[in-house]
Amino acid sequence: MTDKKTALVISAHAADFVWRCGGAIALHQEKGYEVTVACLSYGERGESAKLWKQEGMTLERVKEARREEASNAATALGVNDIRFLDLGDYPLRLDRDAQEQMVDIIREVQPKWMMSHSKWDPYNTDHMNTTQFALECRMIAQAWGHNPGQKVLGAPQLYLFEPHQTEQMEWKPNVFLDITPVWDKKRAAIECMQGQEHLWDFYTNVAENRGNHFRRNSGGQAGGRNCRYAEGFQMIFPQTVDELA
Amino acid sequence: MTDKKTALVISAHAADFVWRCGGAIALHQEKGYEVTVACLSYGERGESAKLWKQEGMTLERVKEARREEASNAATALGVNDIRFLDLGDYPLRLDRDAQEQMVDIIREVQPKWMMSHSKWDPYNTDHMNTTQFALECRMIAQAWGHNPGQKVLGAPQLYLFEPHQTEQMEWKPNVFLDITPVWDKKRAAIECMQGQEHLWDFYTNVAENRGNHFRRNSGGQAGGRNCRYAEGFQMIFPQTVDELA
Amino acid sequence: MTDKKTALVISAHAADFVWRCGGAIALHQEKGYEVTVACLSYGERGESAKLWKQEGMTLERVKEARREEASNAATALGVNDIRFLDLGDYPLRLDRDAQEQMVDIIREVQPKWMMSHSKWDPYNTDHMNTTQFALECRMIAQAWGHNPGQKVLGAPQLYLFEPHQTEQMEWKPNVFLDITPVWDKKRAAIECMQGQEHLWDFYTNVAENRGNHFRRNSGGQAGGRNCRYAEGFQMIFPQTVDELA
Amino acid sequence: MTDKKTALVISAHAADFVWRCGGAIALHQEKGYEVTVACLSYGERGESAKLWKQEGMTLERVKEARREEASNAATALGVNDIRFLDLGDYPLRLDRDAQEQMVDIIREVQPKWMMSHSKWDPYNTDHMNTTQFALECRMIAQAWGHNPGQKVLGAPQLYLFEPHQTEQMEWKPNVFLDITPVWDKKRAAIECMQGQEHLWDFYTNVAENRGNHFRRNSGGQAGGRNCRYAEGFQMIFPQTVDELA
Amino acid sequence: MTDKKTALVISAHAADFVWRCGGAIALHQEKGYEVTVACLSYGERGESAKLWKQEGMTLERVKEARREEASNAATALGVNDIRFLDLGDYPLRLDRDAQEQMVDIIREVQPKWMMSHSKWDPYNTDHMNTTQFALECRMIAQAWGHNPGQKVLGAPQLYLFEPHQTEQMEWKPNVFLDITPVWDKKRAAIECMQGQEHLWDFYTNVAENRGNHFRRNSGGQAGGRNCRYAEGFQMIFPQTVDELA
Amino acid sequence: MTDKKTALVISAHAADFVWRCGGAIALHQEKGYEVTVACLSYGERGESAKLWKQEGMTLERVKEARREEASNAATALGVNDIRFLDLGDYPLRLDRDAQEQMVDIIREVQPKWMMSHSKWDPYNTDHMNTTQFALECRMIAQAWGHNPGQKVLGAPQLYLFEPHQTEQMEWKPNVFLDITPVWDKKRAAIECMQGQEHLWDFYTNVAENRGNHFRRNSGGQAGGRNCRYAEGFQMIFPQTVDELA
Repeated sequence: MTDKKTALVISAHAADFVWRCGGAIALHQEKGYEVTVACLSYGERGESAKLWKQEGMTLERVKEARREEASNAATALGVNDIRFLDLGDYPLRLDRDAQEQMVDIIREVQPKWMMSHSKWDPYNTDHMNTTQFALECRMIAQAWGHNPGQKVLGAPQLYLFEPHQTEQMEWKPNVFLDITPVWDKKRAAIECMQGQEHLWDFYTNVAENRGNHFRRNSGGQAGGRNCRYAEGFQMIFPQTVDELA
Repeated sequence: MTDKKTALVISAHAADFVWRCGGAIALHQEKGYEVTVACLSYGERGESAKLWKQEGMTLERVKEARREEASNAATALGVNDIRFLDLGDYPLRLDRDAQEQMVDIIREVQPKWMMSHSKWDPYNTDHMNTTQFALECRMIAQAWGHNPGQKVLGAPQLYLFEPHQTEQMEWKPNVFLDITPVWDKKRAAIECMQGQEHLWDFYTNVAENRGNHFRRNSGGQAGGRNCRYAEGFQMIFPQTVDELA
Repeated sequence: MTDKKTALVISAHAADFVWRCGGAIALHQEKGYEVTVACLSYGERGESAKLWKQEGMTLERVKEARREEASNAATALGVNDIRFLDLGDYPLRLDRDAQEQMVDIIREVQPKWMMSHSKWDPYNTDHMNTTQFALECRMIAQAWGHNPGQKVLGAPQLYLFEPHQTEQMEWKPNVFLDITPVWDKKRAAIECMQGQEHLWDFYTNVAENRGNHFRRNSGGQAGGRNCRYAEGFQMIFPQTVDELA
Repeated sequence: MTDKKTALVISAHAADFVWRCGGAIALHQEKGYEVTVACLSYGERGESAKLWKQEGMTLERVKEARREEASNAATALGVNDIRFLDLGDYPLRLDRDAQEQMVDIIREVQPKWMMSHSKWDPYNTDHMNTTQFALECRMIAQAWGHNPGQKVLGAPQLYLFEPHQTEQMEWKPNVFLDITPVWDKKRAAIECMQGQEHLWDFYTNVAENRGNHFRRNSGGQAGGRNCRYAEGFQMIFPQTVDELA
Repeated sequence: MTDKKTALVISAHAADFVWRCGGAIALHQEKGYEVTVACLSYGERGESAKLWKQEGMTLERVKEARREEASNAATALGVNDIRFLDLGDYPLRLDRDAQEQMVDIIREVQPKWMMSHSKWDPYNTDHMNTTQFALECRMIAQAWGHNPGQKVLGAPQLYLFEPHQTEQMEWKPNVFLDITPVWDKKRAAIECMQGQEHLWDFYTNVAENRGNHFRRNSGGQAGGRNCRYAEGFQMIFPQTVDELA
Repeated sequence: MTDKKTALVISAHAADFVWRCGGAIALHQEKGYEVTVACLSYGERGESAKLWKQEGMTLERVKEARREEASNAATALGVNDIRFLDLGDYPLRLDRDAQEQMVDIIREVQPKWMMSHSKWDPYNTDHMNTTQFALECRMIAQAWGHNPGQKVLGAPQLYLFEPHQTEQMEWKPNVFLDITPVWDKKRAAIECMQGQEHLWDFYTNVAENRGNHFRRNSGGQAGGRNCRYAEGFQMIFPQTVDELA
């Protein structure tokens, strides 16, 4: 364990953390957090179409390629630690063993906040199952009778990062984070994802437009912050504060 | 205008601000905010049953009594400024004149945040109409072409304070505020409401139980803050931040 | 006022009470209730297509014809009292005068329960505006300071009766009422609506299928009641009971 | 089987039935119901923090202690029968065996009504999984082809009892039960839960405030019942009635 | 594979496809589609009460009888292909094997559209679990790394057909299909279900009333189509079009 | 009236139709529709900040400037007809006169489809009030008794176009329209809005990303259409079809 503040991102497939919260990761690393990314799978079967179109491709080679891309992206973001749980994808194998592994990681990291997918995703059940899994593991990590003697988890916020088609996923951001200072890192990480080049500009557009939303919600033309790139998140749990913002 | 941070509470009836956000008011006054309370009515017809049960009661006498109670409560909370718009109640008269008055107040106060009722209230349409009115006035106050030359409003958060039967009002708090340091002031303000003694303990119970929710959400038995009294609020607009809490 | 139990149905247009709660009316009349029906309009402009297709039709003649149909239907149902407020339709004129009239009726009737339309109806804004109006008037009738000296209203349930396309109106019944004993009366009332013959079988089908829902929810093939016709209603307010059903 | 009316409470952890529906249990026992409580687990890992903080604690000792507390509470409430399924907690093991056990209990009890947790609970997935489990088992118990020859289940209501943070669980009560006559029993049962003393006053506050809600919804200052303590429940299924309340 | 357009209906129990989308099946077959129906179970335990009431009935005999009824109904509708997966019912066994089987069928059929149950069904968890299963299998069938070399699935719409109590299932149709031309076939198929005669008229009523909804939504008395029988469906995914309808 | 197919866009402020549905307008004009745009206001007070920052600006000059911009944009899109109702903005004056005007336009145009804002918009109550107004006017235009003798309106779909912050407005597109063929026209129209240059790239990003959503929903990498720009819409009413798409 560390004295630093920590955070934990749970990503269903290898690339999700890049598009959806690369900015938050880079920014908090710069602020001194240690961010751990747990990739439940490499997205080897379901999110590697470009690789599979190559002659003679095998599952192992896809996984290697995806692992390398994700590792490079993590490096670009300054991620403290990236873990690959290799649980398979489409669908993920989220059984009791996987649960044990994830609870161990949560207890080891003791995150100030956690991050995962939207609650609903009819396009990609791996995504919503991951969120359910994250809530389940958070609960177990809070249990005093689970591996007694270990440090018990507090009550970290669970942020849901932005899914691909927000409205279809019934996802509603209630916080926007200014990622302008680390945009170059996020774009660099995005460009590590060689297999999904069709999404580079998509997520750049998203970041620019979320920047507009940040400006609007911080005051617009009457005092809004000059944010150029932002990310949106949905908090699952209520906040506890000493002053209203 | 002032250099201090300011806040504006829009209360449908004279007593609403006491039960629902008296703690937030007192706390922010202590932190150096100047809080303005705008009471749209005295609750003279609909929330003064005890007075009306007295022989020979008149509307004017009810209004006077309610005004005095509300003023005393405001004093107990340290409110900077309380305004009575006297728009009638059950139902409120929320016409263009009322709108003009409220927009003037908003522009004058330039609140860092605003506060009002829940979006839905089948028991009390004054409450939900007030929230609609608050949103409408907020929008007008942001218009550069409304009274050109005046300082235009930015984008203050609108907090919805706790209604009487939260679940029936489809109200969901996404922030809890620790009001332990000012609880004595809130209880004193509550006791100013002589006509509604049946609610004193009700809202004390609410404050205690929201304190429990604060403790849970700040870490529970594994590091939660020892908050004894809290208030809950629902934010309408997304937050804009530089770091995730 | 009366010693009998009473009920009040608020119907936007002349025929609504027939299709949507004719069974409930007839049944409760048989049980000794005095049911008052308040028709806010005759549906003269918007729900009288057949009449308007006749040569030389006038608004007054349509209103007369509709009034007669509705009165006949009320008689068929055994309605105690039917009132026509003649507020115009498409759209209804729901101003302060209309409010005063309706509050007077509510206070006079002192209903054990009230009934009106669904909360949302994008096809027919008169319907949803009537529900809003009903809630507003219920609130005023509860105000001790409204016409002091009159008997103040308690807290009658507001039942929402079945709209034409239930799913589009976001209406969800939480109670089914067995109207088998009075089905003949309802069908007779339905047949009074000469101008809307295309709906006779529609609402007979509805009653039969709600009968099936009644059977299912009372036990189905393992003990369900042999209900043949039913009506569904959505309660707005929670019930208060001494025993769980 | 019995000639008496029966009810079945399905409680994820040993203490849930006490806080959430102890009043309903005691009240219906007094009315002659036989209430069975099925505790799926002892809450031994996740809801026994106080015990785990003791030196040298073991899982078996925690389970014993929790079982004794729950049994004492059940006695205080006059529960007819309490069953401990010992399925483990955080997370519950809700497999086919558990299903078979629960279906057997349901068929044996033939409850007039069932009771369980809220549909959604991001803090505690055991709770929402229990509700899903209850619905699944209710469905199986209704199947004529499951253990043919046994008495098939009818269509008992499923009441959802009050969760810890109602708004976060998207729980909305649609019935309030007056538990004033049995409040002393509920408080006594609450005090059996030695390990969770921090919740005694919390749930006393809840009962008092639900009493206020009962008074409001039964007429308020114009005829409301003088209920002092109440519990709220959300019905999943529509009711079937012969008269509107 | 075929050059024809294809469709795939996933039915939890043997009879579901008849009541809920028999018209859509017959109509599209007439239009030259090849429609495949996949029955996950025979509904042998949970939807065969009439058979189980016969002396000496066995599971195998119920399955045979149900299979025959369903096959006859499929013939009446002109179904191209009906598959019985025999996964058991109340509850369905929706494990990895079942998933593999269903993904194979989806890939083989390459449906232009798919069809299944509502997302929520508290009465019948088999129904909602089937929808979840359909989404999961659709996702896997889209994965380039699943059985590489096979033709990958595109993005077929998933239509949710009408459940038994629409409002309780939170099902909202956003498209109505005119089935007047094939009504006789649907009624004939319905009459194949000898064990559920109590539902014949129920679903005839549904078809007639949905016909009314079709007329209303296509123009009503001012130009609406003279549709006599219709079925309603809820689309899960957005449509992609070149012209607005 | 015309033999051509027609459409009607109801835009709260002068520029809304450009950002939100400029592509749909241009595309349908190219397909031979006659599209009428009704601008309820010029957005003169609330959406003309840049103009108001100029020295000595007056309301009339702002209106003129905004009218000219909107007219130019309409020309760029090939709009058949643009009407300015000049009802004031922030807030709109949506009284009975305005209603009469709008109903006249609807009856004159006899639109095959209508288009307006999202149902909810806490930032801009003009937007949601416009949608309510559109529904109300649609209903009146359908009334046979409103100006008898005029051609009565059928049941045109009401499309809700994309608001500025979709998730906050609870807007969910259920149809995507490929506007690639007319993108140049839309961009040209956008560039007519000199006062809101900060939004040009924002809405270009939106169009590109909606193009991605179109591709995904039409088949993605396995057969999706190569759409580059799209617009999303939410249908309020169910569709009526003869074949499922």
